[in-house]
Amino acid sequence: MAIRRRIWEIVEVAREGDRISHAFDLSILVLIFLNAAAVVFGSVEEVRQQWGAQLAAFEVFSVLVFTLEYLARLWSCTVDPRFAGPVRGRLRAALQPLTLVDLLAILPFYLPFLGIDLRSLRVLRLMRLFRLAKVGRYYSALGLLRDAVTARREELILSTVLMGLLLVVSSSLLYYCEHTAQPEVFSSIPATMWWAVATLTTVGYGDIYPVTVLGRLCAGVVAILGIGMFALPTSILGAGFLDAISRKNAARTCPHCGKLLNQPASPESPP
Amino acid sequence: MAIRRRIWEIVEVAREGDRISHAFDLSILVLIFLNAAAVVFGSVEEVRQQWGAQLAAFEVFSVLVFTLEYLARLWSCTVDPRFAGPVRGRLRAALQPLTLVDLLAILPFYLPFLGIDLRSLRVLRLMRLFRLAKVGRYYSALGLLRDAVTARREELILSTVLMGLLLVVSSSLLYYCEHTAQPEVFSSIPATMWWAVATLTTVGYGDIYPVTVLGRLCAGVVAILGIGMFALPTSILGAGFLDAISRKNAARTCPHCGKLLNQPASPESPP
Amino acid sequence: MAIRRRIWEIVEVAREGDRISHAFDLSILVLIFLNAAAVVFGSVEEVRQQWGAQLAAFEVFSVLVFTLEYLARLWSCTVDPRFAGPVRGRLRAALQPLTLVDLLAILPFYLPFLGIDLRSLRVLRLMRLFRLAKVGRYYSALGLLRDAVTARREELILSTVLMGLLLVVSSSLLYYCEHTAQPEVFSSIPATMWWAVATLTTVGYGDIYPVTVLGRLCAGVVAILGIGMFALPTSILGAGFLDAISRKNAARTCPHCGKLLNQPASPESPP
Amino acid sequence: MAIRRRIWEIVEVAREGDRISHAFDLSILVLIFLNAAAVVFGSVEEVRQQWGAQLAAFEVFSVLVFTLEYLARLWSCTVDPRFAGPVRGRLRAALQPLTLVDLLAILPFYLPFLGIDLRSLRVLRLMRLFRLAKVGRYYSALGLLRDAVTARREELILSTVLMGLLLVVSSSLLYYCEHTAQPEVFSSIPATMWWAVATLTTVGYGDIYPVTVLGRLCAGVVAILGIGMFALPTSILGAGFLDAISRKNAARTCPHCGKLLNQPASPESPP
Repeated sequence: MAIRRRIWEIVEVAREGDRISHAFDLSILVLIFLNAAAVVFGSVEEVRQQWGAQLAAFEVFSVLVFTLEYLARLWSCTVDPRFAGPVRGRLRAALQPLTLVDLLAILPFYLPFLGIDLRSLRVLRLMRLFRLAKVGRYYSALGLLRDAVTARREELILSTVLMGLLLVVSSSLLYYCEHTAQPEVFSSIPATMWWAVATLTTVGYGDIYPVTVLGRLCAGVVAILGIGMFALPTSILGAGFLDAISRKNAARTCPHCGKLLNQPASPESPP
Repeated sequence: MAIRRRIWEIVEVAREGDRISHAFDLSILVLIFLNAAAVVFGSVEEVRQQWGAQLAAFEVFSVLVFTLEYLARLWSCTVDPRFAGPVRGRLRAALQPLTLVDLLAILPFYLPFLGIDLRSLRVLRLMRLFRLAKVGRYYSALGLLRDAVTARREELILSTVLMGLLLVVSSSLLYYCEHTAQPEVFSSIPATMWWAVATLTTVGYGDIYPVTVLGRLCAGVVAILGIGMFALPTSILGAGFLDAISRKNAARTCPHCGKLLNQPASPESPP
Repeated sequence: MAIRRRIWEIVEVAREGDRISHAFDLSILVLIFLNAAAVVFGSVEEVRQQWGAQLAAFEVFSVLVFTLEYLARLWSCTVDPRFAGPVRGRLRAALQPLTLVDLLAILPFYLPFLGIDLRSLRVLRLMRLFRLAKVGRYYSALGLLRDAVTARREELILSTVLMGLLLVVSSSLLYYCEHTAQPEVFSSIPATMWWAVATLTTVGYGDIYPVTVLGRLCAGVVAILGIGMFALPTSILGAGFLDAISRKNAARTCPHCGKLLNQPASPESPP
Repeated sequence: MAIRRRIWEIVEVAREGDRISHAFDLSILVLIFLNAAAVVFGSVEEVRQQWGAQLAAFEVFSVLVFTLEYLARLWSCTVDPRFAGPVRGRLRAALQPLTLVDLLAILPFYLPFLGIDLRSLRVLRLMRLFRLAKVGRYYSALGLLRDAVTARREELILSTVLMGLLLVVSSSLLYYCEHTAQPEVFSSIPATMWWAVATLTTVGYGDIYPVTVLGRLCAGVVAILGIGMFALPTSILGAGFLDAISRKNAARTCPHCGKLLNQPASPESPP
């Protein structure tokens, strides 16, 4: 039971001062980033030809470590009151979002062994990037982003609806302006949406743009009026992110004594 | 009279708890979005060839529903004190902006029957997108945007004037710099305005750009100084939108008792 | 003397209720915008061929009106205490910035008559756009912009210096990265500055971009770090513009009685 | 000893009223900007051919001046209590960041004489731009930027991590979408990162963009969701910069007497 509790402490995010658990967390984090690097650089033809065997071995090693971590987590989770009970507790632990991510990070490797014939190996490789989502357990930036999105949910949904309406209306407008002049490029309204996205986000690749006078007039008006609409989520998200950071910083100190809350109490502090 | 009142309740935006009216609103909303989807995907050649008959049938069905809704609204509106009177009340109701939108959404379908020969069918198809404006009756995002624009009207007009001046001056400048080197591309000041819009909104398609040293110098100065001007409406609109949302949220609770204002009063509340 | 005072009242911006002066201001404003339109549309080859004579006549008419306005202003200005004195007062009036703009708006027309042979007629045409600056006398948007720039002068200068340093450093960096691979495009550091301006303002025409791995790495880092720097003036100017508008609105009401200051006092108000 | 103190006063940033020291500072600043201009314009082939000898002579002169300034600083620094002691004090002075910059600004010139054979002369030329960093001693804009970055360190690191994750995930996604259709352009994930940087910063050169329907759909979603993330550092830095300026302005006046702190006290002020 003591071993199980210790293992649970180790696989969970380390408490202040728990050196072994902290080292474990750091190792997993490093392994996650090495995995992302392996996916990224493994996509380069030359790297794959020269280091293919090593990359495959590293993949097996990584999956082994992540599998052991997953099993250790499920085995030891019963010591946590939230997940008490050998079956229902473990099931509840397994359905936690971050534990599901842990499963998704290793599942693609095992699918072929489960009799599922996966020809589309390339999608599998992409799914290995799910391992990056495991970072969320250790690193608060993703949590802050989630808080920011949650706090500004209403504004984000409202502006998304406005963006969708604008996208449909401006694409239809440009389609009717440019379809005759450039039937290949502005071939349909869905195709014109690619123009609308490139323009309203101000990316402007230059692969598709109006050439008629009417089309340019409409595109100019759409751009001037619409860019502000597409910039709304950016300013909403920015404000939400800065709020989330200041809320987090405010939560760190006690409002009564002004001491840091995530430091262990010193002996001379009152009980 | 009771039927007329009930129909008016149904075609208007549903009050809290009125299930049938709510279901009616939702059906109309879904029909509007299906219509937008039909316009968008109906512009794809392959879809039109394969589903042309179905799309035409769906168009007839939609116009029928929207026509019935329009007539029901005009017939029942007299129960509302604002539109009392069989002729003048109905006329006043018909001239409400949102009711005009309702008319515009169905009118293009009937124009050929009225003896107006419409060869330009393609513009007609575009006008079907007016149906999206009907969303404004049910969804507050468009209202919020209107409030934001209204509240910041003065700033928006001022910055629009500045943008217009900047557009004229920078286009003229670049025209005189680049006309000799690229007589085809920078053919006139109106043509150069397309360059100015693409540059000052930072879209930058790349179909038109200066090549002379003087032109690039002027373009660089115009871009650095002018982009801030074109970003003004974006920040004005963003601030206005966030203000409108917080005003709307503030209006929801009573400042005296803190209760939500758009919920029906519970029995134990004082009369 | 009474005529002189009346003429001064008319050529100056109209006081509340002075209908004739107001009509005069409006006519001058309309004439200024018609002049800008003549410059813009006069640059279109087809328009010039078909309406050349009319445009030339309109030019002569405009210069005549603006000359009469200029002379009337200088003749009548002595009634204003600021410009008292037939010679020194008029000289002081002539050196007012807006009066200098008035002179610049008509001077190019008269230069050939003064014996100055101006072959570069095209620059002359551009100078006609100076007439747009006359708008500043009647319209407050340009004044607000000037106030915003003045109030945020220090921040704008600081960020301009930072932008200059960034421009030099990033251009030099990319020049050394890309010069060997693209000697024609990245031919020198000044030429590379065109790339830097297009990238840091996020316009990105696509006429010049790095192709080597090192160049793309540097360009990516420069873009991610530098765009924030080039966006600084935009946010500084935006904040300053909104401040200037709220200052102007605050100045409109008396802080003691809350009444509008630019309305004539009603009879029942205390003396 | 008096000469040494005077020289130290001169090479340091001038105190209010010290004319000779102020003139020295200004001369060094001008020399720094002339050096930057020499590097920039010396990269133009025509300038190098015509003014090569003069540029080389100016380089020798500049290095001479900067070397004398460096030696004078190290010789005289012992009069400052911070750098007391002929050896340890001078060493401490030499390791100050700005003094290291002074050394880096002249070192490349002397390296060949030290027996280090530098074939890569072009990198040397780039290092001469380090002299621009010497501006930091005299000009506060760079200091303000450093303060802004320091104050918002946490937010900047958090958003950089988010940008890194987004870069890896979006590049991998687009690589798997577009690799088959454009094997040359989207050749690997690192190559696709160039697309991701150009898109998420909204530069959009147009040298690389998706062409498949799935790729465009993913690119559109990535652009709409991701641009806000890449704009976060811009708004964080902008807010930090404005804060740093207002802090600096607030520090200038004493909060008790309201007098400017960086002016010498007048005789009638209390001791």
